[in-house]
Amino acid sequence: MAASVAYRPARRPLPASLMSKPVLYAMVVVAMVVSGAQGGSVKHYKWKVDYQYWSPDCVEKVIISINGQYPGPTIRVREGDTIVVEMENLMPTEAVIMHWHGMQQRGTPWYDGAGGVSQCAINPGETFVYRFQAEKAGTYFYHGHLGLQRTAGFYGSLIVDVGRGVQEAFEYDGELSILLNDWWHRSAIEQGLGLYSDPFRWVGEPQSLLMEGRGKYNCSLVSGGDAEEAAGDRPRCDETNKQCKPLVLRVQPGLKYRLRLASVTSLSSLNFQIEDHNMTLVEADGNYVEEVVLDNLNLYSGESYSVLIEAYKQPPGGRKTFWVTAHVQGRLPKTTPALAILVYGDGEATTPVSSPPLAPAAWNDTAFSLRQSRMIVAKKGTIPPPASSDQQIILLNTQNRINGVIKWAINNISLVPPTTPFLPALKFGLKLAFDHTIPPVSYPMTTYDIFSPPKNPNANFGTQIYRFPFNSTVDIILQNANSLTVNNSEVHPWHMHGHDFWVLGYGHGKFNPEVDPQAFNLKNPPLRNTVPLYPYGWTALRFVANNPGAWFFHCHVEAHLHMGMGIVFAEGIEHLDRLPRSTMGCGLTKTWLP
Amino acid sequence: MAASVAYRPARRPLPASLMSKPVLYAMVVVAMVVSGAQGGSVKHYKWKVDYQYWSPDCVEKVIISINGQYPGPTIRVREGDTIVVEMENLMPTEAVIMHWHGMQQRGTPWYDGAGGVSQCAINPGETFVYRFQAEKAGTYFYHGHLGLQRTAGFYGSLIVDVGRGVQEAFEYDGELSILLNDWWHRSAIEQGLGLYSDPFRWVGEPQSLLMEGRGKYNCSLVSGGDAEEAAGDRPRCDETNKQCKPLVLRVQPGLKYRLRLASVTSLSSLNFQIEDHNMTLVEADGNYVEEVVLDNLNLYSGESYSVLIEAYKQPPGGRKTFWVTAHVQGRLPKTTPALAILVYGDGEATTPVSSPPLAPAAWNDTAFSLRQSRMIVAKKGTIPPPASSDQQIILLNTQNRINGVIKWAINNISLVPPTTPFLPALKFGLKLAFDHTIPPVSYPMTTYDIFSPPKNPNANFGTQIYRFPFNSTVDIILQNANSLTVNNSEVHPWHMHGHDFWVLGYGHGKFNPEVDPQAFNLKNPPLRNTVPLYPYGWTALRFVANNPGAWFFHCHVEAHLHMGMGIVFAEGIEHLDRLPRSTMGCGLTKTWLP
Repeated sequence: MAASVAYRPARRPLPASLMSKPVLYAMVVVAMVVSGAQGGSVKHYKWKVDYQYWSPDCVEKVIISINGQYPGPTIRVREGDTIVVEMENLMPTEAVIMHWHGMQQRGTPWYDGAGGVSQCAINPGETFVYRFQAEKAGTYFYHGHLGLQRTAGFYGSLIVDVGRGVQEAFEYDGELSILLNDWWHRSAIEQGLGLYSDPFRWVGEPQSLLMEGRGKYNCSLVSGGDAEEAAGDRPRCDETNKQCKPLVLRVQPGLKYRLRLASVTSLSSLNFQIEDHNMTLVEADGNYVEEVVLDNLNLYSGESYSVLIEAYKQPPGGRKTFWVTAHVQGRLPKTTPALAILVYGDGEATTPVSSPPLAPAAWNDTAFSLRQSRMIVAKKGTIPPPASSDQQIILLNTQNRINGVIKWAINNISLVPPTTPFLPALKFGLKLAFDHTIPPVSYPMTTYDIFSPPKNPNANFGTQIYRFPFNSTVDIILQNANSLTVNNSEVHPWHMHGHDFWVLGYGHGKFNPEVDPQAFNLKNPPLRNTVPLYPYGWTALRFVANNPGAWFFHCHVEAHLHMGMGIVFAEGIEHLDRLPRSTMGCGLTKTWLP
Repeated sequence: MAASVAYRPARRPLPASLMSKPVLYAMVVVAMVVSGAQGGSVKHYKWKVDYQYWSPDCVEKVIISINGQYPGPTIRVREGDTIVVEMENLMPTEAVIMHWHGMQQRGTPWYDGAGGVSQCAINPGETFVYRFQAEKAGTYFYHGHLGLQRTAGFYGSLIVDVGRGVQEAFEYDGELSILLNDWWHRSAIEQGLGLYSDPFRWVGEPQSLLMEGRGKYNCSLVSGGDAEEAAGDRPRCDETNKQCKPLVLRVQPGLKYRLRLASVTSLSSLNFQIEDHNMTLVEADGNYVEEVVLDNLNLYSGESYSVLIEAYKQPPGGRKTFWVTAHVQGRLPKTTPALAILVYGDGEATTPVSSPPLAPAAWNDTAFSLRQSRMIVAKKGTIPPPASSDQQIILLNTQNRINGVIKWAINNISLVPPTTPFLPALKFGLKLAFDHTIPPVSYPMTTYDIFSPPKNPNANFGTQIYRFPFNSTVDIILQNANSLTVNNSEVHPWHMHGHDFWVLGYGHGKFNPEVDPQAFNLKNPPLRNTVPLYPYGWTALRFVANNPGAWFFHCHVEAHLHMGMGIVFAEGIEHLDRLPRSTMGCGLTKTWLP
């Protein structure tokens, strides 16, 4: 058994002389495949999942921690390695499921960690072993995927380095990493209750934004009296509290850094900046992109990026410290921006003399966000999409009321994950596990007005799934619309399990199947696993259904998925061998018990 | 299918003329057995378990509710009826298990609802069907038995009437009922975390005491500001809030009432009084006792009683209202007493003119409590205990430190319920499910000083169980001791699953096996399922191991059980037929999955 503690990257950069030279990108791709095929080594992690007191923003709450840490331990492996996570659920009453966001789980769809889809929940007291291959180098993360457990703090980074002897497509001297999140004082359980209540209670804007799990709430708003102490809302604002000490990114003058950024926010879209420093975008969701220089970067929940930063040889004004900040974008901001400090050399991490940079655009400037999305294209050498698709489905998202409670629906179906997960239900033909009707592949396009609240906001709860022929090419058009509120349409970052997809294009208004596909980017569409759908707009994507399993495709806003905003699709189930016993034991899979 | 809503007893008493005459008690016992043997009818309940906002003491928190109610719906059946509860767990991440406190589950030990013992936890989304016979008339209740879910509000009353045509051993004109509880603002999950934390965080004294789920917190201590709102501690103190409106007990002048009292407190021992009214004790834990007149009654967690109250024909001073109150007993009280109002006739439920009665004794007056316990003896005609026992085990409870965290242990073993429940483990011989070592049947009696903190407070976590020969008679001596704190020993109410036991005696100091049994009450010991163990004292009980199954015997203080204060024993497993599949699917029972 290997060490139970994750390998942590050294904070200090390697001297440039030790870094190997860049090679042609096409060669890298070949090397990656070979490495993956060879299997790599096995990295074993032993995790204990339990509650923990923590004060991410200096107010103490209860989080779901791994090995007593928050965020959870970083998994760091090489491409082709097998990741084994032995996860013991020590919580007395809560079950858990862990999703490995960005891992495609080829050959192991049962370890995708998706509640209602890939496995039964891991009961209190149980130990469950996840075992899957890290197929592709890149910046990833993992997070709970049952109820709102991501919101409870159940996540961490997952970084896959290129194979041994393989060179990245870009050079750098050192590496930095920030996992971004938003944070509430109300418990995840209570937030979930509000979403199911009549009257509906929205989760509201977060109390804080966090970088690597650290933020700062205005402690003067929390009195710390006996009643609050009893209720579990306790200020821990003294300087000695390391849990909410601002994150420090330390660089050496003149060196070049790869900064890995990932957003595991429950709700917020973010705009990230480093004061007086440009960023060169090089990776998105584990795929290389053409280098583009940005002075700020939008991150939607579920996305990850690498940017290169060049540290000045002589920082302007002789300064040693600069602000690193993230603002809420896409929703009316009610939360103080997240702040970290970039520090040059071995100097003290003191507060920079300047003010933090302001948000680069208005929160509702969709054109600004759209421009940046369109700048992101695949690096030359990336596998291109098939020239045409076998099937196109159009997914209209609407905000609805079912039995008086606000829900989201896709083509009028609000997804309810079933008690028996789809994967064993499909594999073993457990017919009563879900509704076998085919869900609609489009919506009433000629009559539905996407710019107004729905005329008939009723929708149905459903468990129907899409079935795609194995190896077929599928186009999905995500179509946004007005919510239940006049003049309101929200950003929805959609995340696909089990696959990367090519982003073929974005547009405003109603997608026109006759005209819009002519403008699809088939030349260098970026490969992603998460993509934003902008207000009143559409997003088009293409993927190949070549990964046997049952897969979620859903809005990554945790509350939205909880309200039904997602679909499940399946492909190639006939190619699956037996499922691990450990993934079953609930619902109709109990049939086999003595 | 029968009605899904529990039968609610009429609030208005029957005219005395409609009540049938008392019959001889011996005849009643016979009739009860016949009725039970005939099977009775089937009462079907359909429950949806989910979180709910609730303000039991006028501060809004999140509870675990049944069908949106708190406390849960009252189950009311006749002796011999079969109770079927179809329970759907709608919580997104929490599993549940329901215990039917006082039901002996003869022939259905798998439906006892004890986490780690009788069944796997009911996963989020699952529907589980409990099906068992109400064997014996009496006052009972049900409550969650996984983690600290009882503390989260997951409980209700279960009342079993005598069989049709059968007469109780006493007469009354009407019936009243109060389920007593204590209440915290900190969530049950957070309380559980504190108990497992280093440094240890004790749950503390409750914020409120509740009668039928209603109490009153000092709202001025909760500001209701934005920060508290966000943290989930919200005052709902206006007069229109029915959830915390004081309970009203309404009586008609000159009539006699049966008041059913049950304590499902998480921690507190209580002393109950009705201003200016005596109570005649007639039932304890579903067993008749010799009538004894009391002006106050101690209730330990897990106990239930019936008392008779005679309403004045002309209340003293012409008053229409009287206080009903419950004080904390046995722990230094830091919680306002619970208050309800007894109202005569159809008058308004206004606040009585008097002050509520004071506690009748000092909180730490053990002699007072012990006197009352000794007054409770079995009604003539109750089945007497076997004259001798086949085995005696002595269970010393100690407070300990294991890995720095405070625990409770019995004969140096701190119970940890295993992942595979004991019942399927025993039935199917799943040897790896638990430690098959026999736990100690006594402690070092000659050397251990029960009046001082333990010299070596270390103990071991354990899953060992006691095995009793089927139909053998067992004596258990509960031995109390000093906790980790000098001059401190606590009250522990012990509750046995699957059996009633005879309480043979109580004593102060160390039990002496040579001398003390000579004073055992073998003449009219009360049959109970719960009994207090007093500070620095011992309690002796006898039972017959004639109910095939695996059974908890534990301190009913929820935090104490969570800290390991209990044992499990098994008997007659060889007489059990197959187990219901629904009770399995976790741990080693997954072995049978495909």
